[in-house]
Amino acid sequence: MERLTQIPQSTIQRLPVYLRCLLQVQAVRMPVINSIGIAEMCGTNAAQVRKDLSCLGELGIRGTGYDVEALIGHISRVLGITERRRAAIVGFGKLGGALLGYSGFGERGFEIVAVFDVDPAKIGTVAGDLIVRSFDDLETVLAEEEVEIVIMATPPATAQAVASRVVAAGIRAILNLAPINLDVPEGVIVRQVCLSTDLQILSFYLAQGGSDER
Amino acid sequence: MERLTQIPQSTIQRLPVYLRCLLQVQAVRMPVINSIGIAEMCGTNAAQVRKDLSCLGELGIRGTGYDVEALIGHISRVLGITERRRAAIVGFGKLGGALLGYSGFGERGFEIVAVFDVDPAKIGTVAGDLIVRSFDDLETVLAEEEVEIVIMATPPATAQAVASRVVAAGIRAILNLAPINLDVPEGVIVRQVCLSTDLQILSFYLAQGGSDER
Repeated sequence: MERLTQIPQSTIQRLPVYLRCLLQVQAVRMPVINSIGIAEMCGTNAAQVRKDLSCLGELGIRGTGYDVEALIGHISRVLGITERRRAAIVGFGKLGGALLGYSGFGERGFEIVAVFDVDPAKIGTVAGDLIVRSFDDLETVLAEEEVEIVIMATPPATAQAVASRVVAAGIRAILNLAPINLDVPEGVIVRQVCLSTDLQILSFYLAQGGSDER
Repeated sequence: MERLTQIPQSTIQRLPVYLRCLLQVQAVRMPVINSIGIAEMCGTNAAQVRKDLSCLGELGIRGTGYDVEALIGHISRVLGITERRRAAIVGFGKLGGALLGYSGFGERGFEIVAVFDVDPAKIGTVAGDLIVRSFDDLETVLAEEEVEIVIMATPPATAQAVASRVVAAGIRAILNLAPINLDVPEGVIVRQVCLSTDLQILSFYLAQGGSDER
């Protein structure tokens, strides 16, 4: 695929949101949607939608809108999820368990193919369709299962050590749910999920007594 | 407090990240840190740190850096978390349970004071220090417990109906973990957490074969 690195990061952040809306639209069998419709569903404005989607090429038809099916295909290709990507969860505590039980990943282009823990009481037990693997076998299992993305649901105290080993095993994409900043080498991408951060941003707007964002 | 609405949204998003780093620095009893140190911990650059923090006032001393204790206090005041904010969880499934078990909220300025579900088998059972309340009692409990923020961990199919009732009960800040876009009136702030979105952004960078972000 052609490299699309000229797409602004802020646009990339919004593509999954557009995709989610388009899938909702597809589910009710609407064949076409215009930028105003997408904007209303996504809580943004039509000019933003048009600008973002124009980064992907000439996709809309003036006065008509976007072909829903085609746009879903196009965004999926840009996001690299036309084939399911294989992911593993490290840390099978409450959070890891909740993640494994979440059916949404499959619909959104991802398959959880392995789950790891260090607790001997958990290793070897059945978790959904999987068996909890020992963290000792990390490298072997990641290679065997052709894992591309690791979701880290470990305690914060061990997150950096786990991440270093995951990276040494050749993983280049990490979704980190432990509330610490990970130090990784260049070329490795980390997305940090931290609910406390989101709560603090909500708190800011509450403290300011108004909302600038939706 | 003075209104700080001139702070750019992108800066507001980074303040919790700086705060998390500063708390790590405080834990090892470093009294002062400069913008380079903060930037390295947070995976950004020093100019960005200085620009962001200058939005909050004149806080650093040239050639010395920032007083860690004072900066923590200042960011906490801006984020409105000098006193703990009271939050409730709606939906006590696997995810709701994982959230309730997460100890990090307390350290970051939030207290979970109520948890709701619709399942008669769950209502009345003990969950941590709390008793699971019936969703039928939503309005009463939110008022009694002086809840300011609602964390939604419901299935997507019911999320909009739940959100509408939460908003009607006077809540102005929602952290939504259900993977759908909520329609809320102006003045209500929603933060959307969607792990599939984060995975899709990781996938984009994998598909492009490189990383533009850390």
